[in-house]
Amino acid sequence: MRTKAAVAIEAGKPLEVMDVNLEGPKEGEVLVEIKATGICHTDEFTLSGADPEGLFPAILGHEGAGVVVEVGPGVKSLKPGDHVIPLYTAECRECEYCLNPKTNLCQKVRSTQGQGLMPDGTSRFSMLDGTPILHYMGCSTFSNYTVLPEISLAKVREDAPFDKICYIGCGVTTGIGAVLYTAKAEIGCRAIVFGLGGIGLNVIQGLRLAGADQIVGVDLNPAKVEMAKRFGMTDFVNPAEVEGDLVPYLVNLTKGGADYTFDATGNVNVMRTALEACHKGWGESIIIGVAPAGAEISTRPFQLVTGRSWRGTAFGGARGRTDVPKIVDWYMEGKIEIDPMITHVLPLEDINKGFDLMHAGKSIRAVVQY
Amino acid sequence: MRTKAAVAIEAGKPLEVMDVNLEGPKEGEVLVEIKATGICHTDEFTLSGADPEGLFPAILGHEGAGVVVEVGPGVKSLKPGDHVIPLYTAECRECEYCLNPKTNLCQKVRSTQGQGLMPDGTSRFSMLDGTPILHYMGCSTFSNYTVLPEISLAKVREDAPFDKICYIGCGVTTGIGAVLYTAKAEIGCRAIVFGLGGIGLNVIQGLRLAGADQIVGVDLNPAKVEMAKRFGMTDFVNPAEVEGDLVPYLVNLTKGGADYTFDATGNVNVMRTALEACHKGWGESIIIGVAPAGAEISTRPFQLVTGRSWRGTAFGGARGRTDVPKIVDWYMEGKIEIDPMITHVLPLEDINKGFDLMHAGKSIRAVVQY
Repeated sequence: MRTKAAVAIEAGKPLEVMDVNLEGPKEGEVLVEIKATGICHTDEFTLSGADPEGLFPAILGHEGAGVVVEVGPGVKSLKPGDHVIPLYTAECRECEYCLNPKTNLCQKVRSTQGQGLMPDGTSRFSMLDGTPILHYMGCSTFSNYTVLPEISLAKVREDAPFDKICYIGCGVTTGIGAVLYTAKAEIGCRAIVFGLGGIGLNVIQGLRLAGADQIVGVDLNPAKVEMAKRFGMTDFVNPAEVEGDLVPYLVNLTKGGADYTFDATGNVNVMRTALEACHKGWGESIIIGVAPAGAEISTRPFQLVTGRSWRGTAFGGARGRTDVPKIVDWYMEGKIEIDPMITHVLPLEDINKGFDLMHAGKSIRAVVQY
Repeated sequence: MRTKAAVAIEAGKPLEVMDVNLEGPKEGEVLVEIKATGICHTDEFTLSGADPEGLFPAILGHEGAGVVVEVGPGVKSLKPGDHVIPLYTAECRECEYCLNPKTNLCQKVRSTQGQGLMPDGTSRFSMLDGTPILHYMGCSTFSNYTVLPEISLAKVREDAPFDKICYIGCGVTTGIGAVLYTAKAEIGCRAIVFGLGGIGLNVIQGLRLAGADQIVGVDLNPAKVEMAKRFGMTDFVNPAEVEGDLVPYLVNLTKGGADYTFDATGNVNVMRTALEACHKGWGESIIIGVAPAGAEISTRPFQLVTGRSWRGTAFGGARGRTDVPKIVDWYMEGKIEIDPMITHVLPLEDINKGFDLMHAGKSIRAVVQY
């Protein structure tokens, strides 16, 4: 079939919206009509050329929601008409990782996904002249129709609006999951969130959901304050306005250090501050942000020997097929908010404007609606 | 009263065995006759002058066992004749730390202990000419008699031999505790232990106790192999004999990386290797060793984002008054071994020989018997 898609022809160039060929689903695969997709910093990271593993030409996008159109042979858990959220972290429920309760990093389709291919080692996308186009993060939600492995789709309730729940495909789950699944933050805890962008806001509402007593937001941009407060931030710290070192300031503010800190900046210096602002004895720092290639974190080992832990999270520690439907429920039940974070809705033709808004810091989330 | 003690007059000098004055126990304090004490690398670290917080003159030693001689006013949990192990990590059971199940770092006497003083801010030791001598790690077990806070003493069974259980006051508990209390290693896990000295051997027997399937020991000294095997090591790796990088070698040996790794070297480069040899998704690396002043650990944050955790432990995460008596029981019941690790027993007069044996790598533990 043919479908409209925004294609990343090469690094550093705007996406090109065009018709492309899409082969139907093979064994264990599913054809999905994407109804809406968010534009995430990770798409930008790859498009910019900064991602050392970026491959081109490719159809980016990994934060979508849509409807099953057709299922390939052997697909049992989905049928045409089902509403789904694509998962860049699959959940096969049978690999060594899925069977270990300590991780969500299913490895079943990992290697081919990293190569921009379906599990059989081929792509379903091609240009009209036959040039193959690669998949991206196993999702390629910047195409109106896309093909995914069955295990890379979370089935969700049908009354949830696509243009909101698409954000659960990455940002919402990453932020809330970091709190609930990775940190397992307890009621009454004190926490610090570094970076008040889309991920940071979701960490904040995750902390509110967990019953945190103090939620400190740290950002150089005071324009972030209003929205962060709305999602539950109790204290704002602008490092540019702190006299002296930031770590002792934050330790003092949190009465001895935070029980949990979260880096949502990707800056390795901030990651160090986040670790060292943790409470002695039990504070845990969770790295969410993606650092530039080759950048390293460092600290004195004394920080760990005296009881701080340094950890990280991918997709918020969520098991996609199991947890994403629950997060959709939480949204529909009003336990979490998404609507105020969807600041812009665009047609596919304007997708590059969505990237511009992100660059300019004007959007929290721009969503493309097909 | 007067007591015989080995006094550290200044950094870098041998200890001097002499008679010193010891004041009796004040409110909440206990006078203990030390029957035996191990000589630990931490004593050496301070004596050498490398410890930036080292203070002199002081009576070192923190790995002892003895008998209560006299209790000060208000002491309720101990009476003369009780057998005890001094604790450099107290357990008051009422501070914010003791009441948090995530840590063992009781802070009740921490600040005065760090200054070489009793909780009231004074020392009980002095030279015969009246010159004050400082306490060390709240223990000062290199004195035949010493005074400690009640909360810094674990009461243990009376049939346990002092010259063996003194080692539970630091090395045994640090190593076994790192496995059981900090890592909480599960049956069937794979683990790597870096450094096969006294701590490393106890990590190994802790792993055996926990039911680990694979216990890899890493050391540059092949002379360590025999003893490590005796305590449960299943595989030995000498980094000097590995062609290429050590990390992929260890990852391969442990079929994807270790579930738990332990640094018992204090070398920050080894700490990095230990982290990176952890299994993706869930591997945890525990720092036990004390690094040189100012040394820093570093790695790419990707190591954490893909599921590895970096942690540390002090006194093996053990709560002294609660856990040390249990570890003494385990020794008496044959669940753990100590005897083969006590390689030398010396009188106090020969204590400097114990330090020489440690320098020469000839002892696992030299014990002074009073």
